[in-house]
Amino acid sequence: MKVQVHTTLKEGVLDPQGKAVESALENLGFNGINKIRQGKLFDIDLETNNKEEAEKITKEICKILLANMVIEDYIVKILPDN
Amino acid sequence: MKVQVHTTLKEGVLDPQGKAVESALENLGFNGINKIRQGKLFDIDLETNNKEEAEKITKEICKILLANMVIEDYIVKILPDN
Repeated sequence: MKVQVHTTLKEGVLDPQGKAVESALENLGFNGINKIRQGKLFDIDLETNNKEEAEKITKEICKILLANMVIEDYIVKILPDN
Repeated sequence: MKVQVHTTLKEGVLDPQGKAVESALENLGFNGINKIRQGKLFDIDLETNNKEEAEKITKEICKILLANMVIEDYIVKILPDN
């Protein structure tokens, strides 16, 4: 079963990568951009085909390794089969 | 208008970050994981409220700066207003 995890910095936490992208785009002449925040994306292929189990395992993985819970939020998305 | 960009390494391109996460999880005792690939996530707030324009600008930004078109794919998602 395929799941996707998004980790993003919590509101209020400084995001230097996002700021760097913002400045770079401004220097390149893009003016219509209010804000950019950068996060991480994990495409995970799990052995289980049970949705509840997949969500449980993935949330555990997020808390233990993928997300820094002090400064980051995470979202788990179960992807449709195909 | 809020858009989200996902950049992921193309199939076949080595993903050392993903591999590192895989090994770390194995060492932590998670065995049911077939594969992990890591990518980047950009939450972008654009001035325009026109969907077509937002998509056009975002694709341009991806090609110029956010994605390395040689080794990465990108997806643009227009997020619903709220």
